[in-house]
Amino acid sequence: MLRTHTCGQLRVADVNQTVTLCGWVQVVRDKGGIIYIDLRDRYGITQLILNENSSDTDVIAQARTLSREFVIQAMGEVVERVSKNDKIATGDIEIKVSALEILNPAKLPPFLIQDETDGGDDIRMKYRYLDLRRNVVRQNLQLRHKMAQQTRIYLDGQDFIEVETPVLIKSTPEGARDFVVPSRMNPGEFYALPQSPQTFKQLLMVSGFDRYYQIVKCFRDEDLRADRQPEFTQIDCEMSFVKQEDILQMFEGLIRHLFKTVKNIDMPEVPRMTYADAMRLYGSDKPDTRFGMEFVELNDVAKGKDFVVFDSAELIVGINAAGCAEYTRKQLDELTEWVKRPQVGAKGLAYIRFNADGTLKSSFDKFFDEAALKNIADKFDAKPGDLILIIVGEANKARKQLNDLRLEMGSRLGLRKPDEFKALWVLDFPLLEYGEEEDRWFAMHHPFTSPKPEDIPLLETGDLGKVRANAYDMVINGTEVGGGSVRIFQRPLQQQMFGILGFTEEEAKKQFGFLMDAFEFGAPPHAGIAFGFDRLCSIFGGADSIRDFIAFPKNNSGRDMMIDSPSTIDQKQMDELKIKTVL
Amino acid sequence: MLRTHTCGQLRVADVNQTVTLCGWVQVVRDKGGIIYIDLRDRYGITQLILNENSSDTDVIAQARTLSREFVIQAMGEVVERVSKNDKIATGDIEIKVSALEILNPAKLPPFLIQDETDGGDDIRMKYRYLDLRRNVVRQNLQLRHKMAQQTRIYLDGQDFIEVETPVLIKSTPEGARDFVVPSRMNPGEFYALPQSPQTFKQLLMVSGFDRYYQIVKCFRDEDLRADRQPEFTQIDCEMSFVKQEDILQMFEGLIRHLFKTVKNIDMPEVPRMTYADAMRLYGSDKPDTRFGMEFVELNDVAKGKDFVVFDSAELIVGINAAGCAEYTRKQLDELTEWVKRPQVGAKGLAYIRFNADGTLKSSFDKFFDEAALKNIADKFDAKPGDLILIIVGEANKARKQLNDLRLEMGSRLGLRKPDEFKALWVLDFPLLEYGEEEDRWFAMHHPFTSPKPEDIPLLETGDLGKVRANAYDMVINGTEVGGGSVRIFQRPLQQQMFGILGFTEEEAKKQFGFLMDAFEFGAPPHAGIAFGFDRLCSIFGGADSIRDFIAFPKNNSGRDMMIDSPSTIDQKQMDELKIKTVL
Repeated sequence: MLRTHTCGQLRVADVNQTVTLCGWVQVVRDKGGIIYIDLRDRYGITQLILNENSSDTDVIAQARTLSREFVIQAMGEVVERVSKNDKIATGDIEIKVSALEILNPAKLPPFLIQDETDGGDDIRMKYRYLDLRRNVVRQNLQLRHKMAQQTRIYLDGQDFIEVETPVLIKSTPEGARDFVVPSRMNPGEFYALPQSPQTFKQLLMVSGFDRYYQIVKCFRDEDLRADRQPEFTQIDCEMSFVKQEDILQMFEGLIRHLFKTVKNIDMPEVPRMTYADAMRLYGSDKPDTRFGMEFVELNDVAKGKDFVVFDSAELIVGINAAGCAEYTRKQLDELTEWVKRPQVGAKGLAYIRFNADGTLKSSFDKFFDEAALKNIADKFDAKPGDLILIIVGEANKARKQLNDLRLEMGSRLGLRKPDEFKALWVLDFPLLEYGEEEDRWFAMHHPFTSPKPEDIPLLETGDLGKVRANAYDMVINGTEVGGGSVRIFQRPLQQQMFGILGFTEEEAKKQFGFLMDAFEFGAPPHAGIAFGFDRLCSIFGGADSIRDFIAFPKNNSGRDMMIDSPSTIDQKQMDELKIKTVL
Repeated sequence: MLRTHTCGQLRVADVNQTVTLCGWVQVVRDKGGIIYIDLRDRYGITQLILNENSSDTDVIAQARTLSREFVIQAMGEVVERVSKNDKIATGDIEIKVSALEILNPAKLPPFLIQDETDGGDDIRMKYRYLDLRRNVVRQNLQLRHKMAQQTRIYLDGQDFIEVETPVLIKSTPEGARDFVVPSRMNPGEFYALPQSPQTFKQLLMVSGFDRYYQIVKCFRDEDLRADRQPEFTQIDCEMSFVKQEDILQMFEGLIRHLFKTVKNIDMPEVPRMTYADAMRLYGSDKPDTRFGMEFVELNDVAKGKDFVVFDSAELIVGINAAGCAEYTRKQLDELTEWVKRPQVGAKGLAYIRFNADGTLKSSFDKFFDEAALKNIADKFDAKPGDLILIIVGEANKARKQLNDLRLEMGSRLGLRKPDEFKALWVLDFPLLEYGEEEDRWFAMHHPFTSPKPEDIPLLETGDLGKVRANAYDMVINGTEVGGGSVRIFQRPLQQQMFGILGFTEEEAKKQFGFLMDAFEFGAPPHAGIAFGFDRLCSIFGGADSIRDFIAFPKNNSGRDMMIDSPSTIDQKQMDELKIKTVL
């Protein structure tokens, strides 16, 4: 080795040892004939010291050529520091350098390699290898490593087998857009990259693997938003001979294990809520339950007062922003403007202010006397000092708008703490959703999700929107971190499902014939789940964006700015693949 | 859960318990009013028993509808068996069935789900999910899981961090052919799938990650041989501030850890051999060292006897097949024909038989008297009973041919035992090899491999074939299981290397500018290695082919026979990608 110790290793107990360290120059200070060098590596920072009066003049001269990010090797004696630095683990000692070698000089980095950097997004993406040097970013990836480790420890301990499924698979029309790979050996044909190993893990159940998992890259060629990547990682799991309840317990166990081992947090039992309740109480299938502020529906108490805005609305629904009665008129106007922005899209915002003195004041006083307002306020258990915010309109829209407002109020009131974690199971999702544009039904989860047995008759009667699925999502702090379902494992039901989704029998056979065939050779009941691993890491890291939990992310145009990819390829390559571009 | 226990769990201690098991019907026997069912799952086999006289008639009737591979749930009481089966772990008990449910019936599988199956390759690939049910195949994948687990345990314990590198990267002209992925968002441009995460792991070293690993899928669009797959898995590793010796020790440690934990074998220290010695002694850079039979070069003792075949040859080289003097003339003729096959390509085979009575007989007696033959035999330390086999010709060809013959003799003599494991480091590979056809130099390992410092001057003088690399391969039982090198970490040397490989400065910058730039911002000395994980698993499993250590392999045309991929895609997909096929 080029070193005897790392830069995070030496302590007072090592004093008088001769050591060799390697690392990056974090900073050089030259003060009154004494040169201090902070030497950095992944493990920490150690202070090197050279003294004009006692050190070799060649070494001193060389130390004076150093600047930030030079890679050096330094030999010297460990000495106890006079003025200790209790901010770093090695702060009690320093190295009296006797020899110094520059292993590689460094140009000045284009931005500061510090927790707070002066580099913008683009430059940090281009020089990602320098951005990764910053503690904050590297720690995210160390957290990710630990999350993966602990995931494996938990699942291995539960008899799961990790099996690698193929990356070069087959394009299917259902779901998101596939990335495809032209096959040179089979001209005119293409592989697709998996959006998930769904069918393969189901086949592994048919094979009797019983408990499968994989931490696996998946791919979706969709337009990117700030927080989506064309390639992402899943913790993908499947179990045989289980019911929904078994999955909930097993994977609640995983999440609690991760919180315990990675963050030393004792996560209590994860509460459960139906999709219907989540929509009714939070207007969202992924409610942030770090705070209450549940929706209260007001049709029964707010209609019939000749207030046309209320009377004509399908739904009148509100939240109680406790303690916000002090909001000024200006603040309320601003909040009204906020909900009217196109991103939220509400027509307006009604409110009832429950003043400290017990009086009530609303934005619709013309139609409601104090008793009628009190009647509404009671539905919220409102107290003096509270502010009730009300949205009206078409039910689904009003709920969605009020969800936005609730989250905004939660943020404004500091109720969404990044170091607090609230997990939730959302259950009983609808099996199908109707695509207005395409005029057909789509699988809400995917076509392999099983309807609840008691709702299967509804598949026949055509009341498809009412069919509930044995599907579940895990939500943490308002973010969906995982989801799954009990699967269909019998050919006739799977075939019926494809029919409902508009597949002809021939199409279904062509795309998923292998799976339906497999169901005829002894397929066990099975169920599974997949967690978004990038997202899970970012939540554990208390961050909003997944990007800094991925070593080499792509930008919003799907470009890797560092390696400048995608790029054109040689004509020869295209000729071999028998493709051409049509621009 | 649908079961209380697995099929591998119950013992005599569980007698009298009421249990519920789930699994596949391995076999049903109906004998004298008693029905025996072997119920199988991943964990084992448990015998179920029903008695016409004591069991419920409905249950009996249902049991009689069962056949192979039905998935059932059975409830009953654990009873001690009268006639125990010591071949299975549950052989002391059986389940007296009181209730039975068919969870899913099964059609008759197209081949036997047994260790020895009657299914040919094609049918087993098409119904891979059934082939995976066979113990032998599933155990291979369980071995693979354990290998991955133990690899991670070892590397985690050595402070390595697993980092995921991207799958959508950039096509580069060096190396094998890339799979490419058209980019919809960047029309006319393509991603490539990685042949290895080489540049990314080097960048992680520049980032200061210090010790990186990843068990990672890689891709090569090459014509497939029996034992190559378009997608394969590597254990990919890199370390900073190390020399070659550190890598050898660290990863010898990994291999020994794997042998110990997975196979309970104490692998001794791994011997080392230079590439030059490997070629001289075995005619191969991946010698099978489970047996000796080293080459002996005979030019000094075999030339000058007026035997034109010897005198005109560049190299006369032989092996001693100990104890084979009894080979008949017929056997020797057959062996001669064997080396003359096009796969080997020798012109002929000369031999010296060291008879039991101490006399010597050769195929070239006309030119050599007994003393001259004895002179040759002495170079092999041959004894009565030995057979010396000699190949002549152009040196490289003769060595390659004799390597084939040596391996063949090793196999014939039973010296290549599948349960014996001999590892070897091969060191000091040439940095470059000359491509006659292309009339240029190629990197033997890859363009990032560092020459030995003492050989760097040779890069200038142009004696490029003599430049040795700091590169190393690990060989087990004659198979290369891993290889790596100390890397170039300074821009000027990297640039010089690209120049030697025929890159213009512009091309080098376009393809690898990001890496050369990175070298200027403080790149540490670093080195790494990658193991072929599929291959490593197959060697641990004592098998020749990697295919049965991959859950869903592709055939020799790169097809997944099960899902029938690759396949054509919709015109709409091609339109969106702005590509078309040109057949």
